[in-house]
Amino acid sequence: MTVLVVGGAGFIGSMLVQKLVSDGRSVSVIDKLSLGKIEYISSPQVRFLEEDIANTARVVDFLGDVGTIEEVWHLAANSDIPAGISNVEVDLNDTLLSTIAVIRLMEKVECKKLYFASSSAVYGAHSARLYESTGPLFPISNYGAMKLASEGVISAAHESFLDTAVIFRFPNVVGVPATHGVILDFITRLQEDSTQLQVLGNGSQQKPYIHITELIDAMLFIEKHSSKSLHCFNIGPSDDGVTVREIAELTVDRVAPGADIFYQKSDKGWVGDVPRFRYSVEKLKKLGWTPTLTSKQAVAKA
Amino acid sequence: MTVLVVGGAGFIGSMLVQKLVSDGRSVSVIDKLSLGKIEYISSPQVRFLEEDIANTARVVDFLGDVGTIEEVWHLAANSDIPAGISNVEVDLNDTLLSTIAVIRLMEKVECKKLYFASSSAVYGAHSARLYESTGPLFPISNYGAMKLASEGVISAAHESFLDTAVIFRFPNVVGVPATHGVILDFITRLQEDSTQLQVLGNGSQQKPYIHITELIDAMLFIEKHSSKSLHCFNIGPSDDGVTVREIAELTVDRVAPGADIFYQKSDKGWVGDVPRFRYSVEKLKKLGWTPTLTSKQAVAKA
Repeated sequence: MTVLVVGGAGFIGSMLVQKLVSDGRSVSVIDKLSLGKIEYISSPQVRFLEEDIANTARVVDFLGDVGTIEEVWHLAANSDIPAGISNVEVDLNDTLLSTIAVIRLMEKVECKKLYFASSSAVYGAHSARLYESTGPLFPISNYGAMKLASEGVISAAHESFLDTAVIFRFPNVVGVPATHGVILDFITRLQEDSTQLQVLGNGSQQKPYIHITELIDAMLFIEKHSSKSLHCFNIGPSDDGVTVREIAELTVDRVAPGADIFYQKSDKGWVGDVPRFRYSVEKLKKLGWTPTLTSKQAVAKA
Repeated sequence: MTVLVVGGAGFIGSMLVQKLVSDGRSVSVIDKLSLGKIEYISSPQVRFLEEDIANTARVVDFLGDVGTIEEVWHLAANSDIPAGISNVEVDLNDTLLSTIAVIRLMEKVECKKLYFASSSAVYGAHSARLYESTGPLFPISNYGAMKLASEGVISAAHESFLDTAVIFRFPNVVGVPATHGVILDFITRLQEDSTQLQVLGNGSQQKPYIHITELIDAMLFIEKHSSKSLHCFNIGPSDDGVTVREIAELTVDRVAPGADIFYQKSDKGWVGDVPRFRYSVEKLKKLGWTPTLTSKQAVAKA
């Protein structure tokens, strides 16, 4: 029996794979290495295929060698939200079509348990606190639209053949080895010019952040405690988030103390940026898992 | 200035086109005629292209000849829900990729006003009354998933360039010239064997039905009364629907009086069938439009 992690060499995927391996589980990974790196998961316990999940022939060949697939974790997706605004193909291919390929594959190999990395982006712009049951769902980025579409394809597959389908809605996730995100972006900018930091947006954007170690812990807790059914969980900290201004100041303090920070006028960093949202994680707490770090602590740790 | 109706030769599209023409508006239609028929809309006032909307080259050529596009009505979609259960490609291509093609085209020709035919299927299975803000949205068919995905692509496009984006969530729609649906299905079965009718499901499925004439009237009312923004409206009757048993009896009475009606045991007609739902149309009523026919009257009229 093996656990298949699709997108298992990326930021979140690789940390999940490491944890699964350290828990003594057999793990197989398929990743096309667009941002992921094989070094993140190199271990004798991990069988690895560098391939787009949509390339059925090679994927089926690989799966023939790894044994029975106990469950699938699907974390393959585009993670560059602005890139998908001007070109919907990016999220269509890397986020939705990868999900459709995963579902097809699971039907083919008769695996009925799926864990899927969705996103707060499915909610779009709401001023009220976000519950898993919040509606309407009008995402403001193609990234959010294709995560929402993936959720829909999964719920339809649950109707037709999946026994267990768990949808995790991630907030911002921070930690190492980050492949993208605001902290990495700030550090890169400060390495190029240590005297100043240009911030996208006016710095007032406020969102919940979770540290990768807590996220993985929560996902595995949910895996352990959910029954055969369709489930959806917000995963996040208990607080209402940290501002981009605070993140900029924290990063400058560590990386280039004294650098000037410049902001723009808009409260959005880019088209498709949700400037602020607040999560309810009551459902997850009721299941028995409680976050320990605040958003600011998560950012500081990252 | 012309109104572009994509999928304008189908059941709902052709009735919309006829109404637009009778209102004196210039209309252009693109339809690949998978279920639609050119006869439904043949009129000197209608410019027509038989083509898949995703075939950009031919579509752009055609649009070069029709003048400035004032607004787009997008009604092109797969309408065979069961077909999309076993093969997600059907809804992916005909429902989502057609929407993505429409959005791309609108960006290209700088048209910023879109009206989109969505569906109650985006809601999935809820026992409570369905409001436009109802969540979570876990459709149980790929048809519903790809309508939901289309809504998401449209809301993202509203964030980036659309001024007006109106999403209509249709219930079951009946009338002539039906290309699909339960009544047509019953009539076809009774024409093949006038002594009996085999019904999918146990007949207890209960859903709201609207007559095509009322649907078109409501859509044009909303078009006239909505501001520049993203809007979403349930369109439906005021009642809680009609059962499949009632529809079967009404159809037998008209088409093959005395035929025996046989039911199955399941309350679902097929995998992906939402057996019952109730709509709130309060938002539409507040805008000033009220349905006059009940679900049963709509079915009887059809």
